Amino acid sequence: MAESLGNMKRTHMCGTLRTSNIGNEVVLMGWVQKRRDLGGLIFTDLRDRSGIAQIVFDKDVSEEAFIKAEKIRGEYVIGIRGKVRKRESINPNLPTGEIEVFVEELKIFSQAKTPPIYIEDEDEVSENLRLKYRYLDLRKPKMQKNLMFRHKMAKITRDFLDENGFAEIETPMLTKPTPEGARDYLVPSRVNPGKFYALPQSPQLFKQLLMVSGMDRYFQIVKCFRDEDLRADRQPEFTQIDIEMSFVDIDDVLSLNEKLIQKIFKEMLNVDIELPLQRMSYKEAMERYGSDKPDIRFGFELKCINDIVKNCEFKVFSATVENSGDVRGININGYADAFSRKNISKLEEYVKTYGAKGLAWIKVTNEGVNSPIAKFFSDEEMKKIIERFQAKEGDLILLVADKPKVVFDALGHLRVEIAKKLDILDKNEYKLLWITDFPLFEYDEEEKRYVAKHHPFTSPMEEDIDLLETEPYKVRAKAYDIVLNGIEIGGGSIRIHDSELQQKMFKALGFSQEEAWEKFGFLLEAFQYGTPPHGGIAYGLDRFVMLLTGNDSIREVIAFPKTQNASSPMTEDPSTVDKRQLEELHIQIVE
Amino acid sequence: MAESLGNMKRTHMCGTLRTSNIGNEVVLMGWVQKRRDLGGLIFTDLRDRSGIAQIVFDKDVSEEAFIKAEKIRGEYVIGIRGKVRKRESINPNLPTGEIEVFVEELKIFSQAKTPPIYIEDEDEVSENLRLKYRYLDLRKPKMQKNLMFRHKMAKITRDFLDENGFAEIETPMLTKPTPEGARDYLVPSRVNPGKFYALPQSPQLFKQLLMVSGMDRYFQIVKCFRDEDLRADRQPEFTQIDIEMSFVDIDDVLSLNEKLIQKIFKEMLNVDIELPLQRMSYKEAMERYGSDKPDIRFGFELKCINDIVKNCEFKVFSATVENSGDVRGININGYADAFSRKNISKLEEYVKTYGAKGLAWIKVTNEGVNSPIAKFFSDEEMKKIIERFQAKEGDLILLVADKPKVVFDALGHLRVEIAKKLDILDKNEYKLLWITDFPLFEYDEEEKRYVAKHHPFTSPMEEDIDLLETEPYKVRAKAYDIVLNGIEIGGGSIRIHDSELQQKMFKALGFSQEEAWEKFGFLLEAFQYGTPPHGGIAYGLDRFVMLLTGNDSIREVIAFPKTQNASSPMTEDPSTVDKRQLEELHIQIVE
Repeated sequence: MAESLGNMKRTHMCGTLRTSNIGNEVVLMGWVQKRRDLGGLIFTDLRDRSGIAQIVFDKDVSEEAFIKAEKIRGEYVIGIRGKVRKRESINPNLPTGEIEVFVEELKIFSQAKTPPIYIEDEDEVSENLRLKYRYLDLRKPKMQKNLMFRHKMAKITRDFLDENGFAEIETPMLTKPTPEGARDYLVPSRVNPGKFYALPQSPQLFKQLLMVSGMDRYFQIVKCFRDEDLRADRQPEFTQIDIEMSFVDIDDVLSLNEKLIQKIFKEMLNVDIELPLQRMSYKEAMERYGSDKPDIRFGFELKCINDIVKNCEFKVFSATVENSGDVRGININGYADAFSRKNISKLEEYVKTYGAKGLAWIKVTNEGVNSPIAKFFSDEEMKKIIERFQAKEGDLILLVADKPKVVFDALGHLRVEIAKKLDILDKNEYKLLWITDFPLFEYDEEEKRYVAKHHPFTSPMEEDIDLLETEPYKVRAKAYDIVLNGIEIGGGSIRIHDSELQQKMFKALGFSQEEAWEKFGFLLEAFQYGTPPHGGIAYGLDRFVMLLTGNDSIREVIAFPKTQNASSPMTEDPSTVDKRQLEELHIQIVE
Repeated sequence: MAESLGNMKRTHMCGTLRTSNIGNEVVLMGWVQKRRDLGGLIFTDLRDRSGIAQIVFDKDVSEEAFIKAEKIRGEYVIGIRGKVRKRESINPNLPTGEIEVFVEELKIFSQAKTPPIYIEDEDEVSENLRLKYRYLDLRKPKMQKNLMFRHKMAKITRDFLDENGFAEIETPMLTKPTPEGARDYLVPSRVNPGKFYALPQSPQLFKQLLMVSGMDRYFQIVKCFRDEDLRADRQPEFTQIDIEMSFVDIDDVLSLNEKLIQKIFKEMLNVDIELPLQRMSYKEAMERYGSDKPDIRFGFELKCINDIVKNCEFKVFSATVENSGDVRGININGYADAFSRKNISKLEEYVKTYGAKGLAWIKVTNEGVNSPIAKFFSDEEMKKIIERFQAKEGDLILLVADKPKVVFDALGHLRVEIAKKLDILDKNEYKLLWITDFPLFEYDEEEKRYVAKHHPFTSPMEEDIDLLETEPYKVRAKAYDIVLNGIEIGGGSIRIHDSELQQKMFKALGFSQEEAWEKFGFLLEAFQYGTPPHGGIAYGLDRFVMLLTGNDSIREVIAFPKTQNASSPMTEDPSTVDKRQLEELHIQIVE
């Protein structure tokens, strides 16, 4: 049976001991990382959240402790009282490497079976095993570091927002199902038979109602839910830093958030971010990077050559331009030698996954242009192409001709894929920028109608309001995304604060007046009782922390994530429930 | 249509202007509280989160603004630019009462219909109407104060815990259904047909697993869920301040939490709380106050008179004692005159709601004892009763004879009820105490078995462990509750950290080994890989804030609460959903 603490009280955390502690009597508690018997002594590394200290059992110091110590094995939980001594053989890799503790008293709080995974950062086991034994996986120093990082970053965020007059206000987890957007998680109501709550996809409407209520500056670090198929950066539940402010326009939201971002980078990574951050319109981002979340740590920017090739003999290009398509390309400058024909074929396969039909290429060599399509171009045309891409010897131009959307998508992804292959991305370089001037609507090919690019509460630019009913695809939104190294970490907008304009917006989205009122009547009604201009933003905390800690999956920065199958191998949820429980909820399972 | 901000930028919050601002040009934004036309001027009170400022429209200052101002009505949202002047008729009730702002420019951001409720603290409308128009209800200064109070208290709590080495770690909202405890809210899984998640009733098991993982000091301010019938201090979702620590015993948890409580009282109310807080055993609390959450702001303590009445002629008393019942009473000292026979009859009705069969009474008057049961007692017995209660002239003794549980329950509630009736409770007096030494088990009359008084993970006192298998009802728990003015605001325990002891505990609760492993196998397994001694506490944040803000319902300190029917009149949830949604979730409604 486990020993109890008795009157043993911890005095220090293991990882904090230094030479200044030499001579001190200390009490440490933690897990046995390893044990070595050497020269009649027992050495163990004792581990807690702060790090590791070497402790030594010596018969001459305490025979009782020594005899007891012979039982201890890896992952036993123990407490020791002892004196700090200078270590003879210094371990320069350990902050505590200059000292060791000679034990006078030992308590064994808990024995341990051999764990199924090693408590070491490099343990290469399956993710499933890691999640089944998450409580062991979280003992790894890197996992503890990730969770502490997350805690500290949330703390800094809260401190900053509090100092700037924001109040954290909790919004409901049991809310109204929404027909728009992603799939809801539903919760059957026992008291209201046949009715359901939804877990919130975001507190969007509640935070807007808080602005209507005059709360002025709101924030919340809050769980949100989407029942979508999972990927490395998606979980059924995720955490948002959610912010909303009254009496503001775009500049106010952006400048406040820049200061928050600057503070986070400084305090978490000691990285200085220069303000104001770069701003780029959606249009420019698409044309230069083929993406509304461009990674601007490197070049390979897109160029359009429609004007050059519209009458060329290469029919793939000229026909594309004729049919309102685009011919665009990127110059992988300086890396022509890195790509053999075989490698370029692989790149072609890659762009095909984004709908492109092919990938044309032009190498500039010391013997002139090398390209399977060179023969279709006049010298003049080829010269212009080379000029357009400012290509010189050793460069590789890659070209895609298709519908604009496909061209942007293919080249936007291709430039990032190539940068990764070339390993030219510096994980310690942080390039942030705002993307602005988004279109308010985008055409949904499946639904054959315009849908809101952000959400239906986003304000159009004032100067574009008149276009709402005539040319909605031309209307720009007061929306903005913040992008870090090619990943969107947050986004928001100035909202509509006028009931009439909100109704126009619903109309443009194809809702009848009845539908609009049935779905969002409480918001339309609220807007009739005095609503301030307002706007806000939401960050994906998991993803933000993932990027700053250099991880590739948000599962590394969440204590108890779900698998791709939305289940937990540890607690074995979801699970079956009693018939009685379902009866109380007025539902039954359909086989 | 609503005007936009343009380049108008707020410079001050309304409630912050003072005489030191006289002469300043300021820009204010907010809601029109009221408008008065007087002497050719238009006066309005402009309201924002910080308070109210008087603004004046004067044709001589700006004719344009004046003409526009003639349109504004209550709850219009406006922005004004103007100069601060000294006010001629000072309003001593308003922090800004010495100044007013003469308007040079006016923008009307939003018109407003006449609101269905007044934006005044004393608005006496039905709770249903308040919740339907919650965004208007939250405009009331007292509601804004409540939410700001809550924000600040959560912030102070987070700061304190962070400073003391605690990391806030998020635990899952989609968890495993638990067969024990209150009713779960269930969430059907789309990906795993026929299976369900449960929303957490508390993060209890996850925080214990975090201790197993070596996170050492955890906290979280987190939503929890219970599908129970609602009362004034219950909501389907509520917020816990959840804390867990490793390598600690009772004293460590209590002393840390006392410091947190002290800090909260100092910073939120400027009230000094003396430490250490009083501690009282469960047994003492029951015997003195008939309650394990005693309000110790006043006396009326319980006394037992079994020894005096066991052979008396009043059969109700003597038979009760013979049948292992109790005869106990309270002395409402000094208030005999406040209770006529009729009033005492009402008190009797009150105790009957707690199962008591009657209420005997003895008044001590200047003419001696006055009591309908006096005739059954010898002078000696009556003298002893009077002595036991230290009763003197003007006192009223109230007595209940029944099973001990009923007696405690009836008198425990009665003393509080009487204190309320007598209006002797000071809302600004804060009496805190720890209740300790709880029994580990209590007998569940319905289920005819012992159930855990706190929860099955609570550690027994070490010296009582041997009684687990022989006399479980005698085992005391390492559990503690913190009580403020008769209301439990938090509770916790040192946990079992030994797999074998945990299994013994499940056995004592009547679980077979298979059941225990099926339900809590992951915890039992986790405990086999090295578990530190650990314990913690959880506070009900809603209730804590409710008490400190002097409210009677937690709905006053929650932004968007549910009604007693667990629904929201504003958003109209829960609501019906599409058949398609239910099909995807593999469930159907049972009519």
